[in-house]
Amino acid sequence: MKAHVYVTLKKTVLDPQGQTIQNALKKMQYKAVNDVRQGKYFVLDLDNSLDAAAAKAEVESIAKDVLTNPVIEEFSYKLEEGA
Amino acid sequence: MKAHVYVTLKKTVLDPQGQTIQNALKKMQYKAVNDVRQGKYFVLDLDNSLDAAAAKAEVESIAKDVLTNPVIEEFSYKLEEGA
Repeated sequence: MKAHVYVTLKKTVLDPQGQTIQNALKKMQYKAVNDVRQGKYFVLDLDNSLDAAAAKAEVESIAKDVLTNPVIEEFSYKLEEGA
Repeated sequence: MKAHVYVTLKKTVLDPQGQTIQNALKKMQYKAVNDVRQGKYFVLDLDNSLDAAAAKAEVESIAKDVLTNPVIEEFSYKLEEGA
């Protein structure tokens, strides 16, 4: 089973990296991009012994305790069973 | 319309950051994690004047030319219409 974890800055937090990319895109004539936000993406390969509920609990705990700085970041995730 | 772009290292490329996280998880008694891969996650807020085909072409071009190092990275993306 695989877990896809997406960690992004909270909406209230300025994203200078995203703004830098957006400015670069404008200079490169990509006119249709209003905003860019950059975050981190993790793929966790979980042991198949875990059932969906256990995998959910494990991923949420890992995301909260290890992958995310709760002061400035938030996360979402998706479980991919059978992967 | 929003585009979610996921940039990851190619499978053949060593991921020291992912391995460091995996080792840390083991020490923290998270036993069910066989592998961790880390990548970048971008959310592009696209102008609603673009139709799906134009958005697709724009995102693929941006991902290839700006967001990805084609030597070591690959990307996938998802369009979220009406966002």
